[in-house]
Amino acid sequence: MKDTRSNPEIKKFAGTAAARLIEDGMVVGVGTGSTIAFLIEALGRRVREEGLRVVGVPTSFQSRLLCGKLGITVRDMQDCASLDLAIDGADEVDPRLDLIKGGGASHTREKVVAMMAKEFVVVVDETKLVPALGTTFAIPVEVIPSALAFVDRRLRDLGGAPSLRMAVAKDGPVVTDNGQFVVDVRFPPASDLRHTDLDLHRIPGVVETGLFFDLASKALVGGGSPGSPTLRTLTRTA
Amino acid sequence: MKDTRSNPEIKKFAGTAAARLIEDGMVVGVGTGSTIAFLIEALGRRVREEGLRVVGVPTSFQSRLLCGKLGITVRDMQDCASLDLAIDGADEVDPRLDLIKGGGASHTREKVVAMMAKEFVVVVDETKLVPALGTTFAIPVEVIPSALAFVDRRLRDLGGAPSLRMAVAKDGPVVTDNGQFVVDVRFPPASDLRHTDLDLHRIPGVVETGLFFDLASKALVGGGSPGSPTLRTLTRTA
Repeated sequence: MKDTRSNPEIKKFAGTAAARLIEDGMVVGVGTGSTIAFLIEALGRRVREEGLRVVGVPTSFQSRLLCGKLGITVRDMQDCASLDLAIDGADEVDPRLDLIKGGGASHTREKVVAMMAKEFVVVVDETKLVPALGTTFAIPVEVIPSALAFVDRRLRDLGGAPSLRMAVAKDGPVVTDNGQFVVDVRFPPASDLRHTDLDLHRIPGVVETGLFFDLASKALVGGGSPGSPTLRTLTRTA
Repeated sequence: MKDTRSNPEIKKFAGTAAARLIEDGMVVGVGTGSTIAFLIEALGRRVREEGLRVVGVPTSFQSRLLCGKLGITVRDMQDCASLDLAIDGADEVDPRLDLIKGGGASHTREKVVAMMAKEFVVVVDETKLVPALGTTFAIPVEVIPSALAFVDRRLRDLGGAPSLRMAVAKDGPVVTDNGQFVVDVRFPPASDLRHTDLDLHRIPGVVETGLFFDLASKALVGGGSPGSPTLRTLTRTA
């Protein structure tokens, strides 16, 4: 599920710009992924050079480790009542700023952090913009291992084509930071994914989907060419 | 959350009666709890004495161990496409045969197994019958540990009074067979729990609730006195 089309220079430009949204004293949800790694790097620089006092609330072990390495104070999400801001990447962004997330298998924690925040900003490069969700990316669904056969059948009943996500650096399926599996599900074009999302939540054994509706208020979109990157800001229109 | 009001003789009578619903050749979902332990004992006796060929699909380690000990062939739920029958206990049963389950913290697997079965039968003693769900029992909600603070706040926003279920034979909270926590939530009397159940499913970090709507087709209800137990069969009226 790893993204191979995007240019690291453009991701770095967008991630660095996103770090400038963070203000002194903020408690900030910090997502997961390659663009967010650049955000964490830039934030670490601001902490060291500007003396910015921030607390990062990471959505994954990966981001937690990187924050720690760069001197950013971290706090567990279970110790926070709310967040001033959350910033995360996405696998697909549609014109309403609804998202598919979960390429990194952290979407359950990412959704919790997005919902805990007063404002949720998504930062991506323009290869992630799609006319409709599900255009290029399947919908990641976190599933309890013992329910896998049942959930697989239900997903097919709903018109989906599920595929258990297999690990690369271990045998067998990917195991999430929550100890569960991920099934990537393709639905036919022009499916009503809002309705599907509700159906998915009602399947016992489904922990969470990678569909993020009505959560992002703003998208920072990196574009241009590696030598001369550009940034656009898209704002949700209600 | 353990039941202390019910008499073991009456539970045994009901559990033994439920074992008679199982026919030769069936693949049967086997729930969890004290009444179901009596069902498994009676089923083991039928396997030994009548040569009944059945496969049990247990919803918990506890039931799995007991099936194994009594010579009942078991199969993992992830290896089954569907079940002929599922039998389980409940913490509350209302007049529509809707249920609260989860006193044993196995409700996620129990709901999967109930939904996999062609028929789902609940077996209880009459202390479990209530005029409306939530009368005496809180609603168990399985929650991802890292999302606990967030979910707790959302549950209060929905009007609930959540309480993290603490373990007795270990320090700290109960950990389910899926590696998650259980929060027991009380809602005000006369809450619309069908609507609440949908709201609960939409909270990221909630794995599954203990509300079982429209699943049981029949209830075997043990009653009477320990010396002269009785059995009633209630059938769902659509």
